[in-house]
Amino acid sequence: MLEHLRRRGRASRADLVEATGLSRATISSLSSDLLARRQIVVLPRKVAGAGRPTEELTLNPEAGLVLGIDFGHHRASLVLADAAHEVIGSTVRRWGGSSTWDERAAVAVAAAAELLGEDARDLAGIGTGVPGALVDRQDVVSTLTGTLGRAFGVPVRHDNNTRLAGLAETTWGSARGLPDVAYLRLSTGVGGALVLGGRMRAGPRGAAAEVGHVCVDPAGPVCRCSNRGCLEAYVGLGRVLADAGVPTTSALLTACDAGDRLATGTTARAGHLIGGVLASVAAVVDVTDFVLGGELAGLGEHLTAPVRHTLRRRLPPGLRDTARVEVAALGDYAGALGAVAAVLHDTTVALATPAALRHPAHL
Amino acid sequence: MLEHLRRRGRASRADLVEATGLSRATISSLSSDLLARRQIVVLPRKVAGAGRPTEELTLNPEAGLVLGIDFGHHRASLVLADAAHEVIGSTVRRWGGSSTWDERAAVAVAAAAELLGEDARDLAGIGTGVPGALVDRQDVVSTLTGTLGRAFGVPVRHDNNTRLAGLAETTWGSARGLPDVAYLRLSTGVGGALVLGGRMRAGPRGAAAEVGHVCVDPAGPVCRCSNRGCLEAYVGLGRVLADAGVPTTSALLTACDAGDRLATGTTARAGHLIGGVLASVAAVVDVTDFVLGGELAGLGEHLTAPVRHTLRRRLPPGLRDTARVEVAALGDYAGALGAVAAVLHDTTVALATPAALRHPAHL
Repeated sequence: MLEHLRRRGRASRADLVEATGLSRATISSLSSDLLARRQIVVLPRKVAGAGRPTEELTLNPEAGLVLGIDFGHHRASLVLADAAHEVIGSTVRRWGGSSTWDERAAVAVAAAAELLGEDARDLAGIGTGVPGALVDRQDVVSTLTGTLGRAFGVPVRHDNNTRLAGLAETTWGSARGLPDVAYLRLSTGVGGALVLGGRMRAGPRGAAAEVGHVCVDPAGPVCRCSNRGCLEAYVGLGRVLADAGVPTTSALLTACDAGDRLATGTTARAGHLIGGVLASVAAVVDVTDFVLGGELAGLGEHLTAPVRHTLRRRLPPGLRDTARVEVAALGDYAGALGAVAAVLHDTTVALATPAALRHPAHL
Repeated sequence: MLEHLRRRGRASRADLVEATGLSRATISSLSSDLLARRQIVVLPRKVAGAGRPTEELTLNPEAGLVLGIDFGHHRASLVLADAAHEVIGSTVRRWGGSSTWDERAAVAVAAAAELLGEDARDLAGIGTGVPGALVDRQDVVSTLTGTLGRAFGVPVRHDNNTRLAGLAETTWGSARGLPDVAYLRLSTGVGGALVLGGRMRAGPRGAAAEVGHVCVDPAGPVCRCSNRGCLEAYVGLGRVLADAGVPTTSALLTACDAGDRLATGTTARAGHLIGGVLASVAAVVDVTDFVLGGELAGLGEHLTAPVRHTLRRRLPPGLRDTARVEVAALGDYAGALGAVAAVLHDTTVALATPAALRHPAHL
């Protein structure tokens, strides 16, 4: 029950019955105990239109704070949230492209200290997102673990920032609460995240959801991964902008909105290729909820309509009516939010016990 | 620890330390307790060449029997195994293609009763495999649950028989003990099974691992699923035999062995297409251990060599050296064995408690 609240943030007693498989009576009695010990709290009721509003429970926000840091190529995005999944602060720091990881870690420590202020003693854990496959970044991971761990004395968890953005979409964003979701980040590179049965599938080499490197045509152009005809070689941002003859994604959106045929044709072609690959993903893992993020997803319906069209046409007949393609909801802070979610999902990162809460219940 | 033994059959104390994350001291003390209560037993040691042999533990075989029944189109295959994963009997019954599911269930009950004999009272559960997606077979599932449940008074579990054959390969066969495996059944239809992190991925609609319906060429021939260019439309058994101009798989093998160019060329072409789709599977879920079953896998290296070649060439560079393609080891009883494994994996199916063992320890 506590694990479910760590994953989902808020849940009604009925949600908890469904998620845990425990009886209504057990959940009711367990939640009374946990409320009495202040490990969980009741959320303020929203004003409802009609009918009796359902009471929702969360972990006690005072059980601890979690910091998420997304290390991009040019900047760090930081998000601070409490155990109840409420965001209580965020900030961004930029750096030059030539800065070392030691320098970036120091910038992040200073920004985190400022964001935390006097609440630093309540910090339970730090999550970080880094670009690329973790298996190739062991030096970066150990620099970050060392610097952040020494500065704040809490556990530090790492993952690929694309995967974390996908996790954030299933926790706070377009796919909130959905158990089986594929997230696709459409940018210079094309990466993704796969949530199966409510859990992130990273894979033994952290290489799951490399949807950009599914082959579309074995005789196609060479991809930067050295293979031929990968999806990324067709729909990577640079390729799409060059094909449409525009310099930026916003120029492409403007051209699409104005009905420019080269722009809409190029976008539709990318969408059809993406939809075809998503149909393969569906056939392999039985996922039909898709979220598109990254700059290209900013094209909205110009892109999602052809994605949906080809996806539905290529899905096995039994899956067609269930397919859903949405644009990501979380924007620039998605990676940092995902880093928070990854720490909350990791039950080996301890939150405060009732005795350590700042305002314990008067028992 | 007991759950791990239910999944894996046998394990050394060192395996159990690794699998459970418990300390060596805890596993040692837990296994002493469980040995004293006779919930687990020590396996007879094999004669080892050199060095001290490692003691392996299993569940007490007397904790219960599990029956697996694979319902094919023309016959039922039955396997009886004990809680220690030891097969203690098997049999096959054939029927005409026009028999009803009520008749097939009755045939299976009679065969099972004969196989069990006086041991029927030790039966803990029955697993069955049926062809096709379970979601389309709710009538069959309820017939089998009713008939078998009434006859033996134990829980009955069902799954698709292709998925069960894959589970059996990870439990007893070519992929024994591997946590991340894709199994491909190459027959008239092309289906599969996906084991991720040691657990079967069925998907919310039971449609995972439909690798035969990954699109190879959107302009390709129409598949029986109504889409175009599915892998199955190219490498389904009927297509391959027709292309090679031979009537049976064994004729194809003979022709390949004799170096017939049409036969080897057709087989190699099928292998390259399969390898390409497996590379997509690897990119989506980070699996690089593959097992090929079904009639076509009987072509051995004639098929696996081109599969391996194209798979390795198309994998993302970081995964290439880890790719492994093996032929299934279990043959005709794979589905029934998988049905046994599915019941043993399902911890809601109770095995006997120590008090109920026929030969309890003298405490």
